Amino acid sequence: MIITSKAPQSPYYAVIFSSQRTEGDKGYGRMAQKMDELASGQPGFLGMESARDDELGITVSYWESLDAIKTWKENSAHKVAQNKGKEEWYKNYSVKICKVERAYSFEME
Amino acid sequence: MIITSKAPQSPYYAVIFSSQRTEGDKGYGRMAQKMDELASGQPGFLGMESARDDELGITVSYWESLDAIKTWKENSAHKVAQNKGKEEWYKNYSVKICKVERAYSFEME
Repeated sequence: MIITSKAPQSPYYAVIFSSQRTEGDKGYGRMAQKMDELASGQPGFLGMESARDDELGITVSYWESLDAIKTWKENSAHKVAQNKGKEEWYKNYSVKICKVERAYSFEME
Repeated sequence: MIITSKAPQSPYYAVIFSSQRTEGDKGYGRMAQKMDELASGQPGFLGMESARDDELGITVSYWESLDAIKTWKENSAHKVAQNKGKEEWYKNYSVKICKVERAYSFEME
């Protein structure tokens, strides 16, 4: 899944969220979709990309500033989802907050 | 897929590689495995995590320094793979080189 809202201007920040899910959906899919929509509307949101296979899921979201990341982390609806994540949905996860130093891309002609 | 070789010590760096594949394997699977093994043995390699679904693949590799990332980018076998990637395997990809500023994790009890 790819959501792009703005062309990022340096410097910008990335949050790498990698996770292993517990068995069963338990409301996860609906909440994940809701959180994607909610994150996309946050001030300072630049974009998001996400992939999940049987072993691991990785979501990277991009933000204008560390403040924007902090505000999203403390968003009340997001807090509810974070708690459900720890109680029910994730066996484990890791979060890495990064400053994007350099970026390049390739597109087949 | 998760490979961890060393506990990272701050500061360290992440390379976020996200890609959309062309149709068919065309030798990709074998080369990807070879590159994972080769990367894991590079000086300064800290770990790697990878997920791919029907739409997108994301691989994040972690490194001790920007120099280690540069050396791996210029590795001759890796260069061959990069060229094949552009010619055959990827419709598009993006690479983001990041400094990890902060990290935390959760593990279900």
